[in-house]
Amino acid sequence: MSADPNGPKDPKDPNGVRAVVDEVSSWLTLPADEVDRHLSGPEYGRVTGSVSALNYRASSGDADAFYLQQLLLGRIYGVLTRIPDGPSAEGSVLLHTVTRLLERATMAAEDTWIEPGLLDQAPTEGRAFVSWLKRLARQHQSYHHPYYAEFIHNHATAEDLRTYVIQESAVDGRFDDLLAMMQVGTASNAKMEIANNFWDEMGNGDPAVVHTHLFNQIFKVFDIDGTSIEGSLSANALLSGNLAVLLCRYRRLYPEAVGFLGMMEWLVPLRFKSVVRAWERLGLPDVGIVYHRLHIGIDSHHAAGWFRNVVEPASGSEFMRRGITRGALWRLNSSTRYLDERLPASIGPAA
Amino acid sequence: MSADPNGPKDPKDPNGVRAVVDEVSSWLTLPADEVDRHLSGPEYGRVTGSVSALNYRASSGDADAFYLQQLLLGRIYGVLTRIPDGPSAEGSVLLHTVTRLLERATMAAEDTWIEPGLLDQAPTEGRAFVSWLKRLARQHQSYHHPYYAEFIHNHATAEDLRTYVIQESAVDGRFDDLLAMMQVGTASNAKMEIANNFWDEMGNGDPAVVHTHLFNQIFKVFDIDGTSIEGSLSANALLSGNLAVLLCRYRRLYPEAVGFLGMMEWLVPLRFKSVVRAWERLGLPDVGIVYHRLHIGIDSHHAAGWFRNVVEPASGSEFMRRGITRGALWRLNSSTRYLDERLPASIGPAA
Repeated sequence: MSADPNGPKDPKDPNGVRAVVDEVSSWLTLPADEVDRHLSGPEYGRVTGSVSALNYRASSGDADAFYLQQLLLGRIYGVLTRIPDGPSAEGSVLLHTVTRLLERATMAAEDTWIEPGLLDQAPTEGRAFVSWLKRLARQHQSYHHPYYAEFIHNHATAEDLRTYVIQESAVDGRFDDLLAMMQVGTASNAKMEIANNFWDEMGNGDPAVVHTHLFNQIFKVFDIDGTSIEGSLSANALLSGNLAVLLCRYRRLYPEAVGFLGMMEWLVPLRFKSVVRAWERLGLPDVGIVYHRLHIGIDSHHAAGWFRNVVEPASGSEFMRRGITRGALWRLNSSTRYLDERLPASIGPAA
Repeated sequence: MSADPNGPKDPKDPNGVRAVVDEVSSWLTLPADEVDRHLSGPEYGRVTGSVSALNYRASSGDADAFYLQQLLLGRIYGVLTRIPDGPSAEGSVLLHTVTRLLERATMAAEDTWIEPGLLDQAPTEGRAFVSWLKRLARQHQSYHHPYYAEFIHNHATAEDLRTYVIQESAVDGRFDDLLAMMQVGTASNAKMEIANNFWDEMGNGDPAVVHTHLFNQIFKVFDIDGTSIEGSLSANALLSGNLAVLLCRYRRLYPEAVGFLGMMEWLVPLRFKSVVRAWERLGLPDVGIVYHRLHIGIDSHHAAGWFRNVVEPASGSEFMRRGITRGALWRLNSSTRYLDERLPASIGPAA
């Protein structure tokens, strides 16, 4: 799959958009310094030009380009969130340049889904802000989405659930690390709330109930190889995972991470009730559903603490208020598009 | 203090080394995109050229340049580890370029303190590796350093302890975040060991005994304003804090972080016994010593778990073995230089 950047132009890939995804992917296991030897000269302009062309095509509604954009960003985030066993391009200036191009395009695209002026309407008083945010969510298509309420609940087959689990793994499989990353620099109540959440993910110290371990039990039920699912993920599933990492890795985006992860946890209990129902309906092995049953209880508790200890006290700051609302809407909007896409035509689009 | 990059050259600062530290510092609260408008053209070359000149002078033994290098890196790490309340240059490609120049120079300098060939001598069997590593540390100048064993233990005044606490704050004040960052991407026993450690730092969920909170009690005893201590930190204190962040922020450097933080925790009990002794000798308020008393017990427990669950199982991989040894030596060597410098001439250098 490795592209020859100096070879003749592919008439099917005139801007080198496919080739640059392969090329940047091939750097990821090279030492950063080796990648950065490309930094100066025409190579730099060619690579960043092709990535910009990819972003432009994705923003123009080209589904293939959107997929490639999120695939590449997801691969780069793999480098930034997994321990390698050898060289890695992590830290490379050129890789960071490419990452920023992809991130900025991803953020700009997400902002276009937010109704203009909405962020300015957030109430400044703590409790009023939380109520407003919850009302916004309850009125949102993604809140009681028919993908869960109808399809998963009543119709999904074991194969459908298998596909569901694979797509969800982009986020659920590393929720502990997202919390660890997003809490850097926090203090007092907010820090303790996130730390409590992290410790719950770690099974409160009991290896047998660490959540990522439980999630892997589901993989076993369905005979899924966690290391080779990249090719099975849809563009919107990749986007979900990427948005979570993007918001958790920057201190500047801490407010957005609070809104994004808070909304995720708040919606979990309702959604997972449908998953548990499907599991029971299909008579699948009980060991695979522990994770979902656990989260129905734990996440409603977490969401309540999150709103009380992280969101409410932050509402006095415009920086926090706007960011939290923005992050919450990124989650609601991207989740809707993801669920709409997965809903079989027989059940129809969201109401 | 803001420098005019287009102004006449300062004859006392011909390479613009002081000016570039002020200039880059002034970017830190600007939006990343605004900083990156400098990216192309002669500005880019001028800034990176001055940072390279700073690094060159630091590596040539210029103490002022070494201080400025670590001051700037510390300020940049502040941006990457604290939640802002407004714009931030975090993510800027130009800032990342500068950061990498500073990081690479800092790493290269630390590597020159390691005896050539030493990393190749690490035994490949788990227990033998741990014993070898501990023996290396026990024979090292920093293990039973007279700064603690003599000066703090028997001679330090309250004012000396105040200075000591300020210098140590570069690391102790944020140990929870270091653990959170370094555990990203880990799994099973190693992940649980680090998580346990993190949860202990968080007082096992009790806000009154969160370690950063306890550390702040010491600040209160000495009437230290935690937000304004940057100017009081020595170059080597800044380096200690910077090395810890540097190793914890890159997945590629996870092995080094294991060695560095492991060695830190292992040396704590012995060192803190001298601090507690000084505290009692001087009759300082008891509330300020809780943190140190706690760590004498907790950290010997942590260090044991760290060697057993993180270091020992990793020793089969050359990548891990070399990295762990390298990180441990970085800690031992940099700690020795820091302690040597702080030791009053009356007590003399390390044996």
